[in-house]
Amino acid sequence: MKVVNNTPKFITVEGGEGVGKTTQLRLIETRLQALNIPLLVTREPGGTPLGEQLRALLLQKDGLAPTAMAELLMVFAARAQHVSTVIVPALERGEWVLCDRFTDASFAYQGFGRGISLEVIAQLADIVHPTTKPDLTILLDVDPEIGLQRARARGELDRFEREAAPFFEAVRAGYLSQVEREPDRWRVINAGADLENVQRQLDALLNEWIAGATS
Amino acid sequence: MKVVNNTPKFITVEGGEGVGKTTQLRLIETRLQALNIPLLVTREPGGTPLGEQLRALLLQKDGLAPTAMAELLMVFAARAQHVSTVIVPALERGEWVLCDRFTDASFAYQGFGRGISLEVIAQLADIVHPTTKPDLTILLDVDPEIGLQRARARGELDRFEREAAPFFEAVRAGYLSQVEREPDRWRVINAGADLENVQRQLDALLNEWIAGATS
Repeated sequence: MKVVNNTPKFITVEGGEGVGKTTQLRLIETRLQALNIPLLVTREPGGTPLGEQLRALLLQKDGLAPTAMAELLMVFAARAQHVSTVIVPALERGEWVLCDRFTDASFAYQGFGRGISLEVIAQLADIVHPTTKPDLTILLDVDPEIGLQRARARGELDRFEREAAPFFEAVRAGYLSQVEREPDRWRVINAGADLENVQRQLDALLNEWIAGATS
Repeated sequence: MKVVNNTPKFITVEGGEGVGKTTQLRLIETRLQALNIPLLVTREPGGTPLGEQLRALLLQKDGLAPTAMAELLMVFAARAQHVSTVIVPALERGEWVLCDRFTDASFAYQGFGRGISLEVIAQLADIVHPTTKPDLTILLDVDPEIGLQRARARGELDRFEREAAPFFEAVRAGYLSQVEREPDRWRVINAGADLENVQRQLDALLNEWIAGATS
């Protein structure tokens, strides 16, 4: 398959804890590279030296936790740095960008999860990246109970992974409601299936989406 | 002088580099304590463990500097934590709060200094502290050239103090334009005068303002 070299795409991957994001991101990366698509892989919060410092503050387990609003603003501070020094320059160079979480995660975690008004989050998105939006967002969806079991099995939990079940139920509901609002941009993967099945789903959607996006 | 115990006041002190803020804050603190006013003294960015961590990131001289927008959002993240875990609880306990810089500094530094739209900053202020506003703001005003000489004489410069002269001219103009817009809240001290003179100005304004505020 030869890729027609048109507008570079911005692809994001979303999902709660223990959905297998790292593994699936690597698979997407491999598939895009096999198509000779120039690709930048990055993540949020983080993706820049400053963003990684902010990520460390966000995940730390010691000391008083940030308030929901402080957390949201730190995430958007890291995002401002990330969008203007990494994501936009890559797209302008003609590279595709594959990002582990983006603003949809703020709606899911800080909005649905922590109860911050969705309007406030939309205002921040408008301020920080008025013209940068994912072309495709893949939701790795799994029952939070299964996801948390997997995250726990993986080892020590960060500040988010230590939240209680209702928080993750709300995060998942948040993601699903965003899918409903913008079905064209989203693709949902049932990440509760076994690994081989998940990868088959992912391959199928990538083939379909890339064919459409590059034709 | 006996203070009538009414609504606790939120007092902020603003000014560019080398205006003698630390010295004058200590004088204000002493004067208020002499009046038996229960007082919390704090600063921005900072004032909380998280805020001080963010302050350290903001002032660090290594690595890529934050973009203007990332800087603004970090300042407001620290402020969100500060307002809801320190400033508001103190006022609710009946304490006065004396704070070294607040949102006016965001207008002056990130707005006038770095060119971020004042409307965006006002939006963030509305999101982060819709109902918390200083009752009195004291501007220590000095020609930036003199201020920078003083800051340099003091030793090693942080990331802000290393800015060029036009930045500080813009910051000063920003403060002065805010004074014009809200003359009732602001008092301006000529901080270019000698120390004794500055302290006389400060004493006079405190006596006048406190008499009005507590009568």
